[in-house]
Amino acid sequence: MKRVVLCAAMVASMLSALPAMAQGPKPEDVIEFRQGVYKVIGWYFGPLGAMAKGDMPFDSQVAARNAGIVADMSKIAPDAFVRGSDAGETAVLPDVWSKSQDFDKVMTNFQQQSAKLAEVAQSGDFDAFRAQVGETGKACKACHDDFRKKRR
Amino acid sequence: MKRVVLCAAMVASMLSALPAMAQGPKPEDVIEFRQGVYKVIGWYFGPLGAMAKGDMPFDSQVAARNAGIVADMSKIAPDAFVRGSDAGETAVLPDVWSKSQDFDKVMTNFQQQSAKLAEVAQSGDFDAFRAQVGETGKACKACHDDFRKKRR
Repeated sequence: MKRVVLCAAMVASMLSALPAMAQGPKPEDVIEFRQGVYKVIGWYFGPLGAMAKGDMPFDSQVAARNAGIVADMSKIAPDAFVRGSDAGETAVLPDVWSKSQDFDKVMTNFQQQSAKLAEVAQSGDFDAFRAQVGETGKACKACHDDFRKKRR
Repeated sequence: MKRVVLCAAMVASMLSALPAMAQGPKPEDVIEFRQGVYKVIGWYFGPLGAMAKGDMPFDSQVAARNAGIVADMSKIAPDAFVRGSDAGETAVLPDVWSKSQDFDKVMTNFQQQSAKLAEVAQSGDFDAFRAQVGETGKACKACHDDFRKKRR
């Protein structure tokens, strides 16, 4: 009986997955969406890096706003890794899906570091801010190192 | 004395604007950022439109999340219209800056309608949701009609 129920559940699960597969987004649309998400992240992270390095004067209001946007964007970033969206002009590596536990780990770390950056930026403490920009940058790099094709 | 102070203030203000002008973002970077912002908006608005039309079953949790993201993105959308970023491969019309009061009006309307959509989506009331998706779609269209080159 247990086996029959299991089979029925498997069939139901396979059937329910079918429409999603048939109607799923096209890889090129996912790729454009993903690139969009990271363009937005880069736009707001850029000045945070520049402030941390001293290339731009530290403005705690701008820092807090930008870091808040990066943290918000990090929450939607996982949506942009729809399976199969390595088919096309994209730097993503299939390891995102074949090593999904590792990917989830670096993604979660990015989310946590950027959430912390948003908090720290609000405090106005420049040293803490600079240190946390570094941690967030490392979190970005960890994912780029393992899950993005190297630029030539 | 007043005039001298005013002049000094003007010179200081001009000087302080210089580095910003010199170091301002390149038009192509702004264009990519802008397209990114609207890709993200489109990604999350798409299912809202499909649910409103009945092409996708109404899921109030998905609707609330997506609408919240669209509302958040609408708050950063104005950042993507840096003056001069009509130079390049972009559909933006220079009217964004030459008729900036009109542009601000349609942008503010988009922000207000999508904030309302996020509220309505949370209520789970499908009829109210459908109506507000329509209002938000109209707000999108108003800007596309007046400030975006027509697609051929």
